[in-house]
Amino acid sequence: MHFHVLTLFPEMIDQGVSTSITGRAMDKGLISVDATNIRDFSEDEKHHHVDDYPYGGGAGMVMQAAPVVGAVEHVCNRVTEEGRKRPRVIYMTPQGRVFSQKIAQELAQEEDLVFLCGHYEGIDERALEMCVTDYLSIGDYVLTGGELPAMVMIDCISRLVPGVLNNDVSAEFETFHDNLLEYPQYTRPEEFMGRKVPAILLSGDHKKVDEWRRERSIERTLEHRPDLLDETFLSKKEKKFLAELRKEKETPADAENSAAPSGESEPKA
Amino acid sequence: MHFHVLTLFPEMIDQGVSTSITGRAMDKGLISVDATNIRDFSEDEKHHHVDDYPYGGGAGMVMQAAPVVGAVEHVCNRVTEEGRKRPRVIYMTPQGRVFSQKIAQELAQEEDLVFLCGHYEGIDERALEMCVTDYLSIGDYVLTGGELPAMVMIDCISRLVPGVLNNDVSAEFETFHDNLLEYPQYTRPEEFMGRKVPAILLSGDHKKVDEWRRERSIERTLEHRPDLLDETFLSKKEKKFLAELRKEKETPADAENSAAPSGESEPKA
Repeated sequence: MHFHVLTLFPEMIDQGVSTSITGRAMDKGLISVDATNIRDFSEDEKHHHVDDYPYGGGAGMVMQAAPVVGAVEHVCNRVTEEGRKRPRVIYMTPQGRVFSQKIAQELAQEEDLVFLCGHYEGIDERALEMCVTDYLSIGDYVLTGGELPAMVMIDCISRLVPGVLNNDVSAEFETFHDNLLEYPQYTRPEEFMGRKVPAILLSGDHKKVDEWRRERSIERTLEHRPDLLDETFLSKKEKKFLAELRKEKETPADAENSAAPSGESEPKA
Repeated sequence: MHFHVLTLFPEMIDQGVSTSITGRAMDKGLISVDATNIRDFSEDEKHHHVDDYPYGGGAGMVMQAAPVVGAVEHVCNRVTEEGRKRPRVIYMTPQGRVFSQKIAQELAQEEDLVFLCGHYEGIDERALEMCVTDYLSIGDYVLTGGELPAMVMIDCISRLVPGVLNNDVSAEFETFHDNLLEYPQYTRPEEFMGRKVPAILLSGDHKKVDEWRRERSIERTLEHRPDLLDETFLSKKEKKFLAELRKEKETPADAENSAAPSGESEPKA
Protein backbone atom coordinates (compact mmCIF):
# COMPACT_ATOMS: atom_id res chain seq x y z
CA MET A 1 0.00 0.00 0.00
CA HIS A 2 1.45 3.34 -1.09
CA PHE A 3 0.33 6.57 0.54
CA HIS A 4 1.23 9.83 -1.20
CA VAL A 5 0.72 13.06 0.69
CA LEU A 6 0.72 16.46 -1.02
CA THR A 7 1.38 19.15 1.51
CA LEU A 8 3.11 22.43 2.34
CA PHE A 9 4.59 20.73 5.43
CA PRO A 10 6.19 17.47 4.28
CA GLU A 11 8.34 17.25 7.43
CA MET A 12 5.17 17.04 9.53
CA ILE A 13 4.14 13.91 7.63
CA ASP A 14 7.60 12.34 7.61
CA GLN A 15 7.87 12.68 11.37
CA GLY A 16 4.27 11.86 12.19
CA VAL A 17 4.14 8.47 10.49
CA SER A 18 7.62 7.25 11.45
CA THR A 19 6.58 6.20 14.95
CA SER A 20 4.88 3.11 16.26
CA ILE A 21 2.87 0.81 14.03
CA THR A 22 3.01 2.84 10.81
CA GLY A 23 6.78 3.23 11.27
CA ARG A 24 7.22 -0.52 11.71
CA ALA A 25 4.97 -1.21 8.71
CA MET A 26 7.18 1.08 6.61
CA ASP A 27 10.31 -0.69 7.83
CA LYS A 28 8.79 -4.02 6.86
CA GLY A 29 7.91 -2.67 3.41
CA LEU A 30 4.18 -3.27 3.94
CA ILE A 31 3.32 0.37 3.38
CA SER A 32 5.15 3.39 2.02
CA VAL A 33 4.42 7.01 2.79
CA ASP A 34 5.93 9.78 0.70
CA ALA A 35 5.30 13.47 1.19
CA THR A 36 5.53 15.84 -1.76
CA ASN A 37 5.92 19.57 -1.20
CA ILE A 38 3.29 21.48 -3.19
CA ARG A 39 5.61 24.49 -3.00
CA ASP A 40 7.98 22.70 -5.42
CA PHE A 41 5.29 23.18 -8.06
CA SER A 42 4.92 26.92 -7.56
CA GLU A 43 4.95 28.97 -10.75
CA ASP A 44 6.68 31.75 -8.86
CA GLU A 45 10.33 30.87 -9.26
CA LYS A 46 11.57 33.61 -6.98
CA HIS A 47 9.45 33.35 -3.82
CA HIS A 48 7.82 29.95 -4.39
CA HIS A 49 4.53 31.34 -3.15
CA VAL A 50 1.51 29.09 -3.63
CA ASP A 51 -1.30 31.26 -2.24
CA ASP A 52 -3.04 34.49 -3.09
CA TYR A 53 -5.98 36.63 -1.96
CA PRO A 54 -9.49 35.26 -2.51
CA TYR A 55 -11.52 36.74 -5.35
CA GLY A 56 -14.51 38.53 -3.91
CA GLY A 57 -12.61 39.49 -0.76
CA GLY A 58 -12.52 38.00 2.69
CA ALA A 59 -9.98 36.98 5.30
CA GLY A 60 -7.09 34.63 4.66
CA MET A 61 -5.34 33.27 1.62
CA VAL A 62 -6.34 30.63 -0.92
CA MET A 63 -3.99 28.04 -2.39
CA GLN A 64 -3.63 28.53 -6.15
CA ALA A 65 -4.76 25.99 -8.70
CA ALA A 66 -1.53 25.61 -10.68
CA PRO A 67 0.84 24.26 -7.99
CA VAL A 68 -1.88 21.95 -6.65
CA VAL A 69 -2.73 20.51 -10.06
CA GLY A 70 0.99 20.29 -10.86
CA ALA A 71 1.74 18.31 -7.70
CA VAL A 72 -1.24 15.97 -8.13
CA GLU A 73 -0.37 15.24 -11.75
CA HIS A 74 3.27 14.65 -10.89
CA VAL A 75 2.40 12.05 -8.25
CA CYS A 76 -0.36 10.37 -10.28
CA ASN A 77 1.91 10.13 -13.33
CA ARG A 78 4.65 8.55 -11.26
CA VAL A 79 2.21 5.89 -10.07
CA THR A 80 0.96 5.08 -13.57
CA GLU A 81 4.53 5.04 -14.92
CA GLU A 82 5.27 2.39 -12.32
CA GLY A 83 2.51 0.33 -13.87
CA ARG A 84 -0.23 0.86 -11.33
CA LYS A 85 -3.62 2.44 -11.93
CA ARG A 86 -4.20 6.18 -11.49
CA PRO A 87 -4.87 6.59 -7.77
CA ARG A 88 -7.85 8.13 -6.03
CA VAL A 89 -7.14 11.66 -4.79
CA ILE A 90 -8.58 12.43 -1.36
CA TYR A 91 -9.15 15.99 -0.20
CA MET A 92 -9.67 16.44 3.52
CA THR A 93 -12.44 18.94 4.14
CA PRO A 94 -15.39 19.31 6.49
CA GLN A 95 -17.48 19.31 3.29
CA GLY A 96 -16.64 15.65 2.83
CA ARG A 97 -18.23 12.35 3.72
CA VAL A 98 -17.43 11.64 7.35
CA PHE A 99 -14.56 9.15 7.53
CA SER A 100 -15.42 5.90 9.29
CA GLN A 101 -14.08 2.42 9.81
CA LYS A 102 -16.17 1.30 6.86
CA ILE A 103 -14.62 3.87 4.53
CA ALA A 104 -11.19 2.85 5.85
CA GLN A 105 -11.92 -0.75 4.88
CA GLU A 106 -12.95 0.35 1.41
CA LEU A 107 -9.81 2.49 0.94
CA ALA A 108 -7.57 -0.30 2.26
CA GLN A 109 -8.37 -2.23 -0.94
CA GLU A 110 -6.49 0.36 -3.04
CA GLU A 111 -2.86 0.01 -4.05
CA ASP A 112 -2.16 3.75 -3.94
CA LEU A 113 -3.89 6.68 -2.29
CA VAL A 114 -3.14 10.37 -2.72
CA PHE A 115 -3.98 12.76 0.12
CA LEU A 116 -4.19 16.43 -0.82
CA CYS A 117 -3.75 18.64 2.25
CA GLY A 118 -5.30 22.08 2.12
CA HIS A 119 -4.09 24.98 4.18
CA TYR A 120 -5.03 28.61 4.75
CA GLU A 121 -8.62 29.21 3.63
CA GLY A 122 -8.60 26.23 1.27
CA ILE A 123 -7.72 25.49 -2.32
CA ASP A 124 -8.92 27.17 -5.51
CA GLU A 125 -12.14 25.37 -6.38
CA ARG A 126 -11.05 24.73 -9.97
CA ALA A 127 -8.09 22.60 -8.85
CA LEU A 128 -10.39 20.53 -6.65
CA GLU A 129 -12.87 20.02 -9.48
CA MET A 130 -10.09 18.84 -11.77
CA CYS A 131 -8.19 16.50 -9.42
CA VAL A 132 -10.16 15.30 -6.43
CA THR A 133 -12.05 12.00 -6.49
CA ASP A 134 -13.01 11.79 -2.79
CA TYR A 135 -13.91 14.51 -0.30
CA LEU A 136 -13.52 13.22 3.26
CA SER A 137 -13.85 14.76 6.71
CA ILE A 138 -12.52 13.25 9.93
CA GLY A 139 -15.14 15.07 12.01
CA ASP A 140 -17.17 18.22 12.65
CA TYR A 141 -14.37 20.49 13.75
CA VAL A 142 -12.07 23.02 12.11
CA LEU A 143 -8.36 22.28 11.77
CA THR A 144 -5.45 24.28 10.41
CA GLY A 145 -4.65 21.96 7.54
CA GLY A 146 -5.16 18.53 6.05
CA GLU A 147 -1.95 17.05 7.47
CA LEU A 148 -3.34 15.71 10.76
CA PRO A 149 -6.48 14.30 9.06
CA ALA A 150 -4.26 12.62 6.43
CA MET A 151 -2.15 11.04 9.18
CA VAL A 152 -5.28 9.90 11.00
CA MET A 153 -6.57 8.21 7.84
CA ILE A 154 -3.16 6.68 7.02
CA ASP A 155 -2.93 5.26 10.55
CA CYS A 156 -6.43 3.82 10.39
CA ILE A 157 -6.08 2.37 6.87
CA SER A 158 -2.58 0.96 7.51
CA ARG A 159 -3.91 -1.14 10.38
CA LEU A 160 -6.14 -2.92 7.87
CA VAL A 161 -3.26 -3.83 5.55
CA PRO A 162 -2.46 -7.53 6.08
CA GLY A 163 0.65 -8.02 8.23
CA VAL A 164 0.76 -4.52 9.70
CA LEU A 165 -0.63 -5.49 13.08
CA ASN A 166 1.45 -8.12 14.88
CA ASN A 167 -1.70 -9.96 15.61
CA ASP A 168 -4.21 -9.95 12.79
CA VAL A 169 -6.92 -10.80 15.28
CA SER A 170 -6.34 -7.49 17.01
CA ALA A 171 -7.85 -5.22 14.36
CA GLU A 172 -10.89 -7.44 14.12
CA PHE A 173 -11.76 -7.59 17.77
CA GLU A 174 -11.36 -3.97 18.57
CA THR A 175 -13.88 -1.24 19.00
CA PHE A 176 -16.65 -1.27 16.39
CA HIS A 177 -16.35 -4.97 15.93
CA ASP A 178 -19.98 -5.99 15.86
CA ASN A 179 -20.74 -2.28 16.25
CA LEU A 180 -20.16 -2.42 20.01
CA LEU A 181 -17.78 -0.36 22.12
CA GLU A 182 -14.92 -2.19 23.77
CA TYR A 183 -15.19 -3.81 27.20
CA PRO A 184 -12.94 -2.63 30.06
CA GLN A 185 -9.44 -4.12 30.18
CA TYR A 186 -7.37 -5.01 33.24
CA THR A 187 -3.80 -6.15 33.71
CA ARG A 188 -1.46 -6.82 36.63
CA PRO A 189 -1.48 -6.24 39.54
CA GLU A 190 -4.70 -7.85 40.80
CA GLU A 191 -5.16 -5.03 43.27
CA PHE A 192 -4.19 -1.44 42.59
CA MET A 193 -4.69 1.23 45.25
CA GLY A 194 -7.53 -0.78 46.76
CA ARG A 195 -9.20 -1.50 43.42
CA LYS A 196 -9.47 -5.14 42.45
CA VAL A 197 -9.74 -6.77 39.04
CA PRO A 198 -13.26 -8.20 38.52
CA ALA A 199 -13.10 -11.75 39.91
CA ILE A 200 -14.56 -13.33 36.80
CA LEU A 201 -11.50 -12.35 34.74
CA LEU A 202 -9.33 -14.43 37.09
CA SER A 203 -11.66 -17.44 36.99
CA GLY A 204 -10.13 -19.10 33.95
CA ASP A 205 -13.65 -19.78 32.68
CA HIS A 206 -13.35 -18.51 29.12
CA LYS A 207 -17.00 -18.83 28.32
CA LYS A 208 -17.97 -16.73 31.33
CA VAL A 209 -15.22 -14.20 30.59
CA ASP A 210 -16.50 -13.79 27.03
CA GLU A 211 -20.05 -13.44 28.26
CA TRP A 212 -19.04 -10.85 30.88
CA ARG A 213 -17.10 -8.87 28.29
CA ARG A 214 -19.98 -8.91 25.79
CA GLU A 215 -22.33 -7.66 28.49
CA ARG A 216 -19.95 -4.84 29.48
CA SER A 217 -19.68 -3.89 25.78
CA ILE A 218 -23.45 -3.79 25.44
CA GLU A 219 -23.73 -1.78 28.66
CA ARG A 220 -21.17 0.77 27.50
CA THR A 221 -22.63 1.07 24.05
CA LEU A 222 -26.07 1.68 25.54
CA GLU A 223 -24.63 4.33 27.86
CA HIS A 224 -22.34 6.17 25.47
CA ARG A 225 -23.38 5.39 21.91
CA PRO A 226 -26.92 3.98 21.86
CA ASP A 227 -27.08 4.92 18.16
CA LEU A 228 -24.70 2.04 17.38
CA LEU A 229 -27.04 -0.57 18.86
CA ASP A 230 -29.52 -0.29 16.02
CA GLU A 231 -27.15 -2.11 13.70
CA THR A 232 -25.69 -4.58 16.19
CA PHE A 233 -26.23 -8.30 15.92
CA LEU A 234 -27.15 -9.65 19.36
CA SER A 235 -28.00 -13.18 20.46
CA LYS A 236 -31.39 -13.86 22.01
CA LYS A 237 -29.82 -13.87 25.47
CA GLU A 238 -28.02 -10.60 24.79
CA LYS A 239 -31.19 -8.99 23.55
CA LYS A 240 -32.83 -9.92 26.83
CA PHE A 241 -29.88 -8.45 28.72
CA LEU A 242 -30.17 -5.21 26.74
CA ALA A 243 -33.91 -5.02 27.35
CA GLU A 244 -33.28 -5.36 31.10
CA LEU A 245 -30.63 -2.64 31.00
CA ARG A 246 -33.02 -0.33 29.20
CA LYS A 247 -35.70 -1.05 31.76
CA GLU A 248 -33.26 -0.30 34.60
CA LYS A 249 -32.35 3.00 32.99
CA GLU A 250 -35.99 4.00 33.09
CA THR A 251 -36.19 3.28 36.83
CA PRO A 252 -37.15 6.50 38.64
CA ALA A 253 -34.41 8.24 40.64
CA ASP A 254 -35.67 7.22 44.11
CA ALA A 255 -35.36 3.56 43.21
CA GLU A 256 -31.81 3.95 41.94
CA ASN A 257 -30.12 2.94 45.19
CA SER A 258 -31.61 -0.51 45.01
CA ALA A 259 -30.66 -0.96 41.36
CA ALA A 260 -27.54 -2.95 40.56
CA PRO A 261 -24.43 -0.87 39.90
CA SER A 262 -23.18 -0.86 36.34
CA GLY A 263 -20.44 -3.04 37.79
CA GLU A 264 -17.48 -2.28 35.59
CA SER A 265 -14.97 -2.58 38.39
CA GLU A 266 -16.91 -4.52 41.03
CA PRO A 267 -14.66 -3.85 44.02
CA LYS A 268 -15.24 -6.48 46.67
CA ALA A 269 -16.32 -5.08 50.04
CA MET B 1 -3.26 27.83 27.41
CA HIS B 2 -1.14 24.89 28.52
CA PHE B 3 -1.50 21.50 26.87
CA HIS B 4 0.05 18.51 28.63
CA VAL B 5 0.27 15.24 26.74
CA LEU B 6 0.98 11.93 28.46
CA THR B 7 2.26 9.43 25.93
CA LEU B 8 4.68 6.61 25.14
CA PHE B 9 5.78 8.60 22.05
CA PRO B 10 6.62 12.13 23.23
CA GLU B 11 8.72 12.81 20.12
CA MET B 12 5.62 12.33 17.98
CA ILE B 13 3.89 15.17 19.85
CA ASP B 14 6.95 17.43 19.93
CA GLN B 15 7.33 17.17 16.17
CA GLY B 16 3.65 17.22 15.31
CA VAL B 17 2.78 20.49 16.99
CA SER B 18 5.92 22.43 16.10
CA THR B 19 4.75 23.24 12.57
CA SER B 20 2.46 25.90 11.21
CA ILE B 21 -0.07 27.70 13.40
CA THR B 22 0.47 25.75 16.62
CA GLY B 23 4.23 26.18 16.23
CA ARG B 24 3.85 29.93 15.79
CA ALA B 25 1.47 30.12 18.76
CA MET B 26 4.07 28.35 20.90
CA ASP B 27 6.77 30.77 19.73
CA LYS B 28 4.54 33.69 20.65
CA GLY B 29 3.93 32.18 24.10
CA LEU B 30 0.17 31.95 23.52
CA ILE B 31 0.12 28.20 24.07
CA SER B 32 2.53 25.64 25.46
CA VAL B 33 2.62 21.94 24.67
CA ASP B 34 4.64 19.57 26.81
CA ALA B 35 4.85 15.84 26.31
CA THR B 36 5.53 13.57 29.29
CA ASN B 37 6.72 10.01 28.72
CA ILE B 38 4.55 7.57 30.66
CA ARG B 39 7.46 5.14 30.53
CA ASP B 40 9.34 7.38 32.99
CA PHE B 41 6.77 6.33 35.58
CA SER B 42 7.23 2.60 35.08
CA GLU B 43 7.66 0.61 38.30
CA ASP B 44 9.97 -1.72 36.42
CA GLU B 45 13.34 -0.05 36.87
CA LYS B 46 15.17 -2.46 34.62
CA HIS B 47 13.09 -2.70 31.43
CA HIS B 48 10.74 0.27 31.98
CA HIS B 49 7.87 -1.79 30.67
CA VAL B 50 4.44 -0.26 31.10
CA ASP B 51 2.18 -2.97 29.67
CA ASP B 52 1.16 -6.51 30.49
CA TYR B 53 -1.22 -9.23 29.30
CA PRO B 54 -4.95 -8.65 29.80
CA TYR B 55 -6.66 -10.53 32.62
CA GLY B 56 -9.18 -12.91 31.14
CA GLY B 57 -7.07 -13.44 28.02
CA GLY B 58 -7.25 -11.94 24.57
CA ALA B 59 -4.95 -10.41 22.00
CA GLY B 60 -2.64 -7.49 22.67
CA MET B 61 -1.26 -5.80 25.74
CA VAL B 62 -2.85 -3.45 28.27
CA MET B 63 -1.15 -0.40 29.79
CA GLN B 64 -0.75 -0.81 33.53
CA ALA B 65 -2.44 1.42 36.06
CA ALA B 66 0.61 2.48 38.11
CA PRO B 67 2.67 4.30 35.45
CA VAL B 68 -0.46 5.98 34.06
CA VAL B 69 -1.66 7.21 37.45
CA GLY B 70 1.91 8.22 38.32
CA ALA B 71 2.26 10.31 35.17
CA VAL B 72 -1.16 11.96 35.53
CA GLU B 73 -0.54 12.87 39.18
CA HIS B 74 2.91 14.23 38.34
CA VAL B 75 1.54 16.58 35.70
CA CYS B 76 -1.54 17.62 37.69
CA ASN B 77 0.56 18.35 40.77
CA ARG B 78 2.94 20.48 38.75
CA VAL B 79 -0.01 22.55 37.51
CA THR B 80 -1.46 23.08 41.00
CA GLU B 81 1.99 23.89 42.40
CA GLU B 82 2.20 26.63 39.79
CA GLY B 83 -0.97 28.05 41.31
CA ARG B 84 -3.49 26.93 38.72
CA LYS B 85 -6.47 24.66 39.26
CA ARG B 86 -6.22 20.88 38.82
CA PRO B 87 -6.73 20.34 35.08
CA ARG B 88 -9.27 18.19 33.31
CA VAL B 89 -7.80 14.91 32.09
CA ILE B 90 -8.98 13.85 28.63
CA TYR B 91 -8.74 10.25 27.47
CA MET B 92 -9.08 9.69 23.73
CA THR B 93 -11.26 6.66 23.09
CA PRO B 94 -14.01 5.67 20.69
CA GLN B 95 -16.10 5.21 23.86
CA GLY B 96 -16.10 8.95 24.35
CA ARG B 97 -18.33 11.84 23.41
CA VAL B 98 -17.64 12.72 19.79
CA PHE B 99 -15.37 15.75 19.65
CA SER B 100 -16.90 18.75 17.87
CA GLN B 101 -16.32 22.45 17.36
CA LYS B 102 -18.67 23.09 20.29
CA ILE B 103 -16.62 20.91 22.65
CA ALA B 104 -13.47 22.64 21.38
CA GLN B 105 -14.98 26.00 22.31
CA GLU B 106 -15.81 24.70 25.79
CA LEU B 107 -12.29 23.29 26.31
CA ALA B 108 -10.67 26.49 25.01
CA GLN B 109 -11.93 28.19 28.19
CA GLU B 110 -9.57 26.08 30.34
CA GLU B 111 -6.12 27.21 31.42
CA ASP B 112 -4.63 23.71 31.31
CA LEU B 113 -5.66 20.47 29.63
CA VAL B 114 -4.12 17.03 30.09
CA PHE B 115 -4.37 14.52 27.23
CA LEU B 116 -3.82 10.89 28.17
CA CYS B 117 -2.85 8.83 25.12
CA GLY B 118 -3.64 5.14 25.23
CA HIS B 119 -1.78 2.55 23.18
CA TYR B 120 -1.91 -1.17 22.65
CA GLU B 121 -5.30 -2.56 23.68
CA GLY B 122 -5.97 0.36 26.01
CA ILE B 123 -5.33 1.28 29.64
CA ASP B 124 -6.19 -0.63 32.81
CA GLU B 125 -9.75 0.44 33.63
CA ARG B 126 -8.88 1.28 37.23
CA ALA B 127 -6.42 4.00 36.15
CA LEU B 128 -9.08 5.54 33.91
CA GLU B 129 -11.66 5.49 36.71
CA MET B 130 -9.23 7.25 39.04
CA CYS B 131 -7.85 9.93 36.72
CA VAL B 132 -9.96 10.69 33.71
CA THR B 133 -12.52 13.50 33.71
CA ASP B 134 -13.46 13.51 30.00
CA TYR B 135 -13.72 10.67 27.49
CA LEU B 136 -13.56 12.01 23.95
CA SER B 137 -13.49 10.45 20.50
CA ILE B 138 -12.47 12.21 17.29
CA GLY B 139 -14.59 9.87 15.18
CA ASP B 140 -15.89 6.36 14.53
CA TYR B 141 -12.65 4.74 13.46
CA VAL B 142 -9.88 2.76 15.14
CA LEU B 143 -6.43 4.30 15.53
CA THR B 144 -3.18 2.98 16.93
CA GLY B 145 -2.94 5.40 19.82
CA GLY B 146 -4.19 8.63 21.29
CA GLU B 147 -1.37 10.78 19.92
CA LEU B 148 -2.96 11.79 16.61
CA PRO B 149 -6.34 12.49 18.25
CA ALA B 150 -4.59 14.59 20.92
CA MET B 151 -2.82 16.60 18.21
CA VAL B 152 -6.10 17.05 16.32
CA MET B 153 -7.77 18.42 19.45
CA ILE B 154 -4.80 20.64 20.33
CA ASP B 155 -4.81 22.09 16.80
CA CYS B 156 -8.54 22.73 16.91
CA ILE B 157 -8.57 24.21 20.43
CA SER B 158 -5.45 26.35 19.83
CA ARG B 159 -7.16 28.11 16.95
CA LEU B 160 -9.76 29.37 19.42
CA VAL B 161 -7.18 30.88 21.78
CA PRO B 162 -7.19 34.66 21.25
CA GLY B 163 -4.25 35.82 19.15
CA VAL B 164 -3.34 32.42 17.69
CA LEU B 165 -4.85 33.10 14.29
CA ASN B 166 -3.37 36.10 12.51
CA ASN B 167 -6.82 37.24 11.72
CA ASP B 168 -9.34 36.67 14.50
CA VAL B 169 -12.12 36.92 11.97
CA SER B 170 -10.82 33.80 10.27
CA ALA B 171 -11.84 31.28 12.92
CA GLU B 172 -15.31 32.79 13.08
CA PHE B 173 -16.12 32.75 9.42
CA GLU B 174 -14.92 29.30 8.63
CA THR B 175 -16.79 26.09 8.19
CA PHE B 176 -19.52 25.53 10.76
CA HIS B 177 -20.05 29.20 11.21
CA ASP B 178 -23.81 29.40 11.22
CA ASN B 179 -23.73 25.63 10.82
CA LEU B 180 -23.14 25.89 7.07
CA LEU B 181 -20.35 24.41 4.99
CA GLU B 182 -17.94 26.81 3.38
CA TYR B 183 -18.50 28.33 -0.06
CA PRO B 184 -15.98 27.68 -2.87
CA GLN B 185 -12.89 29.86 -2.95
CA TYR B 186 -11.01 31.20 -5.97
CA THR B 187 -7.77 33.07 -6.38
CA ARG B 188 -5.58 34.24 -9.28
CA PRO B 189 -5.42 33.66 -12.19
CA GLU B 190 -8.88 34.57 -13.50
CA GLU B 191 -8.67 31.74 -15.97
CA PHE B 192 -6.96 28.44 -15.26
CA MET B 193 -6.83 25.74 -17.93
CA GLY B 194 -10.01 27.06 -19.48
CA ARG B 195 -11.86 27.41 -16.17
CA LYS B 196 -12.92 30.91 -15.20
CA VAL B 197 -13.61 32.43 -11.82
CA PRO B 198 -17.35 33.07 -11.36
CA ALA B 199 -17.96 36.56 -12.73
CA ILE B 200 -19.78 37.79 -9.66
CA LEU B 201 -16.61 37.48 -7.55
CA LEU B 202 -14.90 39.98 -9.85
CA SER B 203 -17.84 42.42 -9.81
CA GLY B 204 -16.74 44.36 -6.72
CA ASP B 205 -20.34 44.30 -5.51
CA HIS B 206 -19.84 43.10 -1.94
CA LYS B 207 -23.48 42.62 -1.22
CA LYS B 208 -23.94 40.38 -4.23
CA VAL B 209 -20.72 38.49 -3.45
CA ASP B 210 -21.92 37.81 0.09
CA GLU B 211 -25.30 36.69 -1.18
CA TRP B 212 -23.71 34.39 -3.78
CA ARG B 213 -21.43 32.86 -1.16
CA ARG B 214 -24.27 32.28 1.30
CA GLU B 215 -26.26 30.57 -1.43
CA ARG B 216 -23.32 28.31 -2.38
CA SER B 217 -22.91 27.44 1.31
CA ILE B 218 -26.57 26.54 1.61
CA GLU B 219 -26.37 24.52 -1.61
CA ARG B 220 -23.34 22.57 -0.43
CA THR B 221 -24.75 21.95 2.99
CA LEU B 222 -27.96 20.62 1.47
CA GLU B 223 -25.96 18.36 -0.82
CA HIS B 224 -23.34 17.03 1.60
CA ARG B 225 -24.59 17.57 5.15
CA PRO B 226 -28.34 18.18 5.15
CA ASP B 227 -28.35 17.21 8.86
CA LEU B 228 -26.65 20.54 9.65
CA LEU B 229 -29.49 22.59 8.14
CA ASP B 230 -31.88 21.78 10.95
CA GLU B 231 -29.98 24.07 13.30
CA THR B 232 -29.04 26.79 10.83
CA PHE B 233 -30.36 30.31 11.09
CA LEU B 234 -31.52 31.46 7.66
CA SER B 235 -33.10 34.72 6.54
CA LYS B 236 -36.54 34.67 4.94
CA LYS B 237 -34.95 35.01 1.49
CA GLU B 238 -32.50 32.20 2.20
CA LYS B 239 -35.28 29.95 3.39
CA LYS B 240 -37.03 30.52 0.11
CA PHE B 241 -33.81 29.71 -1.77
CA LEU B 242 -33.44 26.48 0.23
CA ALA B 243 -37.03 25.51 -0.44
CA GLU B 244 -36.45 25.97 -4.18
CA LEU B 245 -33.28 23.88 -4.05
CA ARG B 246 -35.14 21.11 -2.28
CA LYS B 247 -37.87 21.25 -4.86
CA GLU B 248 -35.29 21.05 -7.67
CA LYS B 249 -33.73 18.00 -6.05
CA GLU B 250 -37.06 16.26 -6.16
CA THR B 251 -37.40 16.96 -9.88
CA PRO B 252 -37.57 13.65 -11.74
CA ALA B 253 -34.54 12.62 -13.80
CA ASP B 254 -36.06 13.41 -17.24
CA ALA B 255 -36.55 17.03 -16.24
CA GLU B 256 -33.01 17.42 -14.98
CA ASN B 257 -31.61 18.84 -18.21
CA SER B 258 -33.79 21.88 -17.92
CA ALA B 259 -32.89 22.49 -14.28
CA ALA B 260 -30.28 25.13 -13.50
CA PRO B 261 -26.77 23.77 -12.90
CA SER B 262 -25.49 24.00 -9.34
CA GLY B 263 -23.28 26.71 -10.78
CA GLU B 264 -20.25 26.56 -8.58
CA SER B 265 -17.81 27.31 -11.34
CA GLU B 266 -20.02 28.90 -14.00
CA PRO B 267 -17.61 28.74 -16.93
CA LYS B 268 -18.60 31.25 -19.57
CA ALA B 269 -19.33 29.70 -22.94
